[in-house]
Amino acid sequence: MTIPYKNMTAAQKSAELDTVREAFEAEKALGLKLDMSRGKPGREQLDLVSEMLTVIAEPSDCFDGTIDTRNYGEVRGIPAAKKLFAELLGCKPEECFIGGCASLTLMYDLIAKAYTHGLLRSEKSWSKEEKIKFLCPAPGYDRHFKVSQSFGMELITVAMTPTGPDMDAVEELVKDPAVKGMWCVPKFSNPDGIVYSDETIARIARMKPAAPDFALMWDNAYCIHEFEGEFIPFPDMLALCREAGNPDMVYEFASTSKVTFPGAGVSVMAASTDNIDYLAALIGIQIISYDKVNQLRHVRYLKDKAHTLALMKKHAAILRPKFRCVLDTLAREIAPLGIAEWQKPTGGYFISVNTLPGLAKRTLALCKEAGVTMTPAGATFPYGVDPNDSNIRIAPTLPPVDELQKAIDVFCLSLRLAALEQLTK
Amino acid sequence: MTIPYKNMTAAQKSAELDTVREAFEAEKALGLKLDMSRGKPGREQLDLVSEMLTVIAEPSDCFDGTIDTRNYGEVRGIPAAKKLFAELLGCKPEECFIGGCASLTLMYDLIAKAYTHGLLRSEKSWSKEEKIKFLCPAPGYDRHFKVSQSFGMELITVAMTPTGPDMDAVEELVKDPAVKGMWCVPKFSNPDGIVYSDETIARIARMKPAAPDFALMWDNAYCIHEFEGEFIPFPDMLALCREAGNPDMVYEFASTSKVTFPGAGVSVMAASTDNIDYLAALIGIQIISYDKVNQLRHVRYLKDKAHTLALMKKHAAILRPKFRCVLDTLAREIAPLGIAEWQKPTGGYFISVNTLPGLAKRTLALCKEAGVTMTPAGATFPYGVDPNDSNIRIAPTLPPVDELQKAIDVFCLSLRLAALEQLTK
Repeated sequence: MTIPYKNMTAAQKSAELDTVREAFEAEKALGLKLDMSRGKPGREQLDLVSEMLTVIAEPSDCFDGTIDTRNYGEVRGIPAAKKLFAELLGCKPEECFIGGCASLTLMYDLIAKAYTHGLLRSEKSWSKEEKIKFLCPAPGYDRHFKVSQSFGMELITVAMTPTGPDMDAVEELVKDPAVKGMWCVPKFSNPDGIVYSDETIARIARMKPAAPDFALMWDNAYCIHEFEGEFIPFPDMLALCREAGNPDMVYEFASTSKVTFPGAGVSVMAASTDNIDYLAALIGIQIISYDKVNQLRHVRYLKDKAHTLALMKKHAAILRPKFRCVLDTLAREIAPLGIAEWQKPTGGYFISVNTLPGLAKRTLALCKEAGVTMTPAGATFPYGVDPNDSNIRIAPTLPPVDELQKAIDVFCLSLRLAALEQLTK
Repeated sequence: MTIPYKNMTAAQKSAELDTVREAFEAEKALGLKLDMSRGKPGREQLDLVSEMLTVIAEPSDCFDGTIDTRNYGEVRGIPAAKKLFAELLGCKPEECFIGGCASLTLMYDLIAKAYTHGLLRSEKSWSKEEKIKFLCPAPGYDRHFKVSQSFGMELITVAMTPTGPDMDAVEELVKDPAVKGMWCVPKFSNPDGIVYSDETIARIARMKPAAPDFALMWDNAYCIHEFEGEFIPFPDMLALCREAGNPDMVYEFASTSKVTFPGAGVSVMAASTDNIDYLAALIGIQIISYDKVNQLRHVRYLKDKAHTLALMKKHAAILRPKFRCVLDTLAREIAPLGIAEWQKPTGGYFISVNTLPGLAKRTLALCKEAGVTMTPAGATFPYGVDPNDSNIRIAPTLPPVDELQKAIDVFCLSLRLAALEQLTK
């Protein structure tokens, strides 16, 4: 059957339901145990960068100029690491603050410090404000939303469009001084894989938030993570905000979690030098320095932007068949049925499927029944609640292609079954 | 002259002042540039552990059981690292939470979370309390005090005795429900090098603080850091607090900063499993995992307690001549003069000199004049203010012995000159 389900007669739907249910039960009987829940690189990607493990092997390898990376000091990171990240992000080395293995920690700590100490332009610490609201373009990244939620903020959902967050809504919302910031993944957004358009980016840079300490959380997690085609240059948001008269509004984040090792990488926060000065003084109470040997290990291994982009091509060669497997299967099995839509990302770590309303939870419950673990329904929305029960995030990077094919077959059957159950009710 | 300065006649003092001033000026003319300011290991110690850099060299080295340390996950740390630290601290693996390279960060984050979320037994978050007071045995570690100060706590100075903090005072002070915690370095305290006596430790474990969420910050930074003699076993404070009915009062911290690399080590927080469960849930919002490859690197290199203690013997062999150089010079040059006293530590990273009142600042100013950088006077007291202007922290670990000898010679001359200036005023 390749006609849209909604065009089917009752008898056709009923027959299709029987067929799909039978196929689903057959899959279920196989006792699969497959995981498409998290944006984890697969084993092959981790093995790809093994040379990094020994690139620093002797005492003489441990120096960045005169700095002995093994000893205390350099809270902002070693100069060589600032230079590398500045080149990758298109900003200046002195705008870079190098962290530990998780950019999430830099984001969390920024918000935590806003609460306990206030940001550079805060009139008081956020814990002393009656109410803090944060803009959450959704579907978005569950861990972002959970940081805000953990601090008791009110999460305001902003719709995502194919060119980024709905800027008409954003421009209106930031007039409220209680709105203190916004989460953004501007390139290959999590989970849609949308690249914000130049116009959207320009409008964000030009915003005039009522809150003087509005924090634009610019999580450029996938800044060099194309899996189809060539590297897409991306504007330096620090420069755009500066030119728009908002030099201290933006905090940009990135990491090597999906370049080298998710469990042992290096992260960066880029911001105006005034912001970095202010934050480095606060962070200097919290740590003497992040792991500088690992910073140098990354610099020695990644070398520069050209060399890093060449490595990303190798990651892309591993990831491309996985994304194509999912996208081709969706195109073949689901597209003709008119029960879901999705973007066709060329980078990032996810594919985000929007089903007809009310199908997401049931689809994932069926997947689970058949042994396929997916990101829980609703996770991509504030408070874990998808108002339409429609968005499903697929993370195709971890399993090998043959397992992934099985998993996505189960997913397609589950989605069809959920749709038919609803249509035949 | 080897009679105490106070026993000298005016003429003797005047003559001694001339002699010392001349010697001081001669040292000053050498244009020295020496640093005894921070407890940093020296180059030789860093080179000692170079094998750690390559102990994990291949993909197959990266697994702790079935856990691929290179990938995401395991926020509490890898099992092998929990086992190693539990053996070193004498607690249970499930009581250990493994962090990044800095135990200071684990301490800071604990306090930060007390402010933003509250601790396990808090009635409300500390930011909602009118006043928070924290006990600071002094002289103590400046970075501890600065964490408390950074959150606007009132720092209460508690006197240090040769057996640990003045417990009569502590037991009285903790009756105030605004007193929410205490900083302790129980073994080889920073800066005195005092080992808390069994009685002091027992009294601390048995305290009955009025605050239900009193946080005993048990920074066991020098738990295996003997430089003279054999390893001194130390009680498991978690067990003592549990037995005394205070299972959730204590948070113990340690790290490999002075075992492997200060700039690339591994840290641990040990606490009751209820505390660890509570905190791991909060920290899980902040990070997916700390650097697990580095955790495994440490486990593979350090192996177990016996092997780690053998490594500490090698560190001791490097440190012993440095501490002896300082202690011998002080005994020879200063002890007979009756102008200062000090403990004779057998472990840790510091020697703490208590001069006659009013000499510390002037002594360090003279040191600086002659090119010797020391920890600023007052740093070892809350708010950086030593009420007697008496305590000076000497950090003898970084310079080679020949430089150290020059530096401590300058220090002794500076102290004598400061004393004579005061006595002849």
